[in-house]
Amino acid sequence: MNINQVTQQVLRRHHRRNNHAPDHSSAAVVERSGASLKGLVLGPQHLIVSNMEGEIYVYSMASVFEEALKKCSESQPKDELCPERCAKRGRGELQGCDAEPITPKRLRLRIQTNCDTELVSALRELVGIPSVSADKRLQDECFRSAKFIARQLEILGAEVKMAQEVRNPVVIGRLGRKPDVPTVTFYGHYDVQPALEDGWRTNGTSDNKGPVLGFLFAVKELMESCAAEGKELPINCAFCFEGEEENGSHGFAATLEANQHWFSGTEVVLVSNTLWIGETRPCLTYALRGLICLDVGVTGLKRDLHSGNDGGVFNEPMVDLVNVIGTLVDGRNSILVPGFSEDIEEHHRDRKILEIIDRSGEFNLDDYREYLGVPSLLERRSASDLLYERWCAPSLSIVDIRAGDTANEEILPECYRFGPTRFSVIPHRAVGKVSIRFVPKQRPENLISCIKIHLQHEFAKLRSSNKLEITVRNIGDWWEADTDSRLFKAAERAVEREWNLEPLHVREGGTMPMIATLEKTLRAPAIMLPFGQASNNPHLANERIRGVNLLRGKNVVRNFLEELVDLRK
Amino acid sequence: MNINQVTQQVLRRHHRRNNHAPDHSSAAVVERSGASLKGLVLGPQHLIVSNMEGEIYVYSMASVFEEALKKCSESQPKDELCPERCAKRGRGELQGCDAEPITPKRLRLRIQTNCDTELVSALRELVGIPSVSADKRLQDECFRSAKFIARQLEILGAEVKMAQEVRNPVVIGRLGRKPDVPTVTFYGHYDVQPALEDGWRTNGTSDNKGPVLGFLFAVKELMESCAAEGKELPINCAFCFEGEEENGSHGFAATLEANQHWFSGTEVVLVSNTLWIGETRPCLTYALRGLICLDVGVTGLKRDLHSGNDGGVFNEPMVDLVNVIGTLVDGRNSILVPGFSEDIEEHHRDRKILEIIDRSGEFNLDDYREYLGVPSLLERRSASDLLYERWCAPSLSIVDIRAGDTANEEILPECYRFGPTRFSVIPHRAVGKVSIRFVPKQRPENLISCIKIHLQHEFAKLRSSNKLEITVRNIGDWWEADTDSRLFKAAERAVEREWNLEPLHVREGGTMPMIATLEKTLRAPAIMLPFGQASNNPHLANERIRGVNLLRGKNVVRNFLEELVDLRK
Repeated sequence: MNINQVTQQVLRRHHRRNNHAPDHSSAAVVERSGASLKGLVLGPQHLIVSNMEGEIYVYSMASVFEEALKKCSESQPKDELCPERCAKRGRGELQGCDAEPITPKRLRLRIQTNCDTELVSALRELVGIPSVSADKRLQDECFRSAKFIARQLEILGAEVKMAQEVRNPVVIGRLGRKPDVPTVTFYGHYDVQPALEDGWRTNGTSDNKGPVLGFLFAVKELMESCAAEGKELPINCAFCFEGEEENGSHGFAATLEANQHWFSGTEVVLVSNTLWIGETRPCLTYALRGLICLDVGVTGLKRDLHSGNDGGVFNEPMVDLVNVIGTLVDGRNSILVPGFSEDIEEHHRDRKILEIIDRSGEFNLDDYREYLGVPSLLERRSASDLLYERWCAPSLSIVDIRAGDTANEEILPECYRFGPTRFSVIPHRAVGKVSIRFVPKQRPENLISCIKIHLQHEFAKLRSSNKLEITVRNIGDWWEADTDSRLFKAAERAVEREWNLEPLHVREGGTMPMIATLEKTLRAPAIMLPFGQASNNPHLANERIRGVNLLRGKNVVRNFLEELVDLRK
Repeated sequence: MNINQVTQQVLRRHHRRNNHAPDHSSAAVVERSGASLKGLVLGPQHLIVSNMEGEIYVYSMASVFEEALKKCSESQPKDELCPERCAKRGRGELQGCDAEPITPKRLRLRIQTNCDTELVSALRELVGIPSVSADKRLQDECFRSAKFIARQLEILGAEVKMAQEVRNPVVIGRLGRKPDVPTVTFYGHYDVQPALEDGWRTNGTSDNKGPVLGFLFAVKELMESCAAEGKELPINCAFCFEGEEENGSHGFAATLEANQHWFSGTEVVLVSNTLWIGETRPCLTYALRGLICLDVGVTGLKRDLHSGNDGGVFNEPMVDLVNVIGTLVDGRNSILVPGFSEDIEEHHRDRKILEIIDRSGEFNLDDYREYLGVPSLLERRSASDLLYERWCAPSLSIVDIRAGDTANEEILPECYRFGPTRFSVIPHRAVGKVSIRFVPKQRPENLISCIKIHLQHEFAKLRSSNKLEITVRNIGDWWEADTDSRLFKAAERAVEREWNLEPLHVREGGTMPMIATLEKTLRAPAIMLPFGQASNNPHLANERIRGVNLLRGKNVVRNFLEELVDLRK
């Protein structure tokens, strides 16, 4: 039985079943036929078959893709998403049902379309799993997410390990160990911040489940395209997807260290956990700020006390805390800690890059202010001044203050013990949560030391009998890429090929502590390929990703892998 | 069948049932007998019968009382509780089983012992109902508490009304409308602050369920003693027990106003919602501080924002709040608001009273410091200096600061939305909760005005684009008694008769806004008869009342009613 006969058999079965799509049973027929097939790729919703003679038959059920597409891109015109596919619409439910032979270029597009479908479908499924790493009650959900990723890796043909050092496992995978091809390590995370909204547009679409699946389907697409041409995947891939990124990446560095052989030969670490500067111009991220998380706690009382019965004759922890924590930063967001700004350098490269962004029109102060929903921005001369502040200057936020038992980090407080009437209760303890973003070349140990000395000094001024405790909850270092490297240039070409636009170079105010760990442990530089738009709202209730960005982001990754191969030529 | 025959029948039944106590069925026998009885009082755990000839038979099951007693006074020697009863111990399980006739004086003691038993038992039942008014989910429990009190009033023979103006009903009762006897209005509340501990020593024992039941059983005891002597109760009683005291007394003033006829003729309002200064000397409270509850909120952002992505370029509500709220009070607990202290007068009477307290040894700084569990007290020259500060000077506490959605007063926050990792989230809103205690002759409107002007001035200095909102959540005025009045002197005698000790005159730092309302509406002065010790911890997790204080507190109230009657002679 040759491929045409198999295909005919599949089609006959299909037509008998009243125009339903080929399904697993159809695929099973193909498999059972024992025909010498090449480039047979099976998925739950599509079937691609190419024979040894180069005749290609593609079966794909349009209605499935339509459904996925609807969910994925409500906010944009459909024809943006996949012009090739849209042009074909109206030919009946089953596309390619007439089994026309197509050219290799059109095959590539067909493969891409099918990977798009699968990517959207997989993302829909994955974001349905509320894998909130900070919530211990959702640990099973985190594990479900990890297994989902592991299964996707296995479908790719990768060897997979779930490395569980602390709580949620790191999903490690390896595809190929060919000595003469480049090795790429993909890093991402499957855990998310909690979201209040239902449905698939929940947290994780952008941060970071969308991009993680984008990586996997980029590899799949490249693999299928190569297979269709009778070739093997021209790269080795290593994968490393953690489940504690939103919760301090507990145990990740140790796991990476212990499993280094999985990543042997890594030439570049690919990460997509940043965003574009605006809505339309693709970007490459070349630097991030660092993060220090501090608890500033005041203790001293053995228990809560009554503000009426006893208020006024002892130092109150909350009053002490407010007085001392208020000395960290002023109303202009200037950090008032002596010595804090010593290591900051003015970077001329950044100023030049900011001018390019200014000219691009991708970022303007009014839109940004409106997007943030703040009454006004702090006075800056221009958009690039503001961006410089946002990206290249440190900032200090007091993100929370907790009173009494709710200050206990170990217990997720179920409710305020004294309810809305706690006006009479002086809390025995008060803890302020401080988030500090710092920039190259500031060193976190120095900054922490400056802050401790400053706070202790200010606390001493209060002459309080309470005790000040400063606890470092987390540190993540800043990161900077070498924008002149071959790899960075390859990334630029990968973006340009997909979008026909030169990517803007951007920094970000956020932090990815794991980048430094990855670069150091794997001895390879990281490249950050952001998928999403500035308006994606990572960590917030309405986090989202635009369908176009998801699919084209995947394409950029595929392009980058091809560029890597070309670098070897 | 005469009373002796009935009694014998009860006793025979009792003995047949192997020394078990008389129960409801025994009582039913008595009732069914149709004998002409006087002073028959039935309760689930005891039976008191007195006949027309003055022969008295008292049946009481000691084991029941013992059990209640054990729960009530673990921390103190039992013989303190009821010397008369303890002297009788060892005579067998059933006290008075031998049915000996006793003298009127001993009858009085027996009635007292039985009221003690019932009081402890009733309190155990009432504090088992978690009537937390601040928690809407517990509204049914509040209603159960109200019904419990209403039932107790009905047992007394009072006419009862549940007046429900807003949420939890005010239980109103009236017992007697005789024109020629004094009328006393009892005020108290059946709602409580939440407690974390199980069992009957939960919140409410001291604040205020214990004293409320103490009132009822004082009336009951007086009534029974009078009945035993063939007399009627020589006073009229009005009752007024609210269920929103811990939640701002919503609707109470209006309910009182609308039901004034229930309280007609009120000569004095009796309240017991304060504490002794120490552990052994009974006290009378003659003044309270006022309370202003303020929300100081900073808003401006439409939603929470990411401290990494956007931190540093706009004014953050929490930073603004900390900077502005910190200007209210310094590390020495001095209120820094201009004009705040204008109306405060030094009171020589208070200084003299404080010297008496100093000499009593009831209050010393080391014990107080240790009791509070604070590392040290603010420097004062003496105990009376500290008490002056605690009672006669204003204080300002920052009792809580809430971030983002948890700042919403309407929603009792179930958990922090961003869990322990909210370090990256700049809350869109921050609210500080400020509790201000003020003293005679300060006027709350003036103080609020001073604070608003000061905070707006300090906020303006920040030049922030956010908005400052100051919301008055609650105001309760200070209160002062006329310590030279006939009623106050009567209260002194009532205490002295029970304790053989002159009561100390004390003030308190806490606030009871309803006292002023009651005095004004009923046009009668209030007398505060504290039941409990300084260590009772109202509003806190380990709130308690000592058995002795509960029972003797009830006796003081009974004595006071008798003193009131004597004032008329």
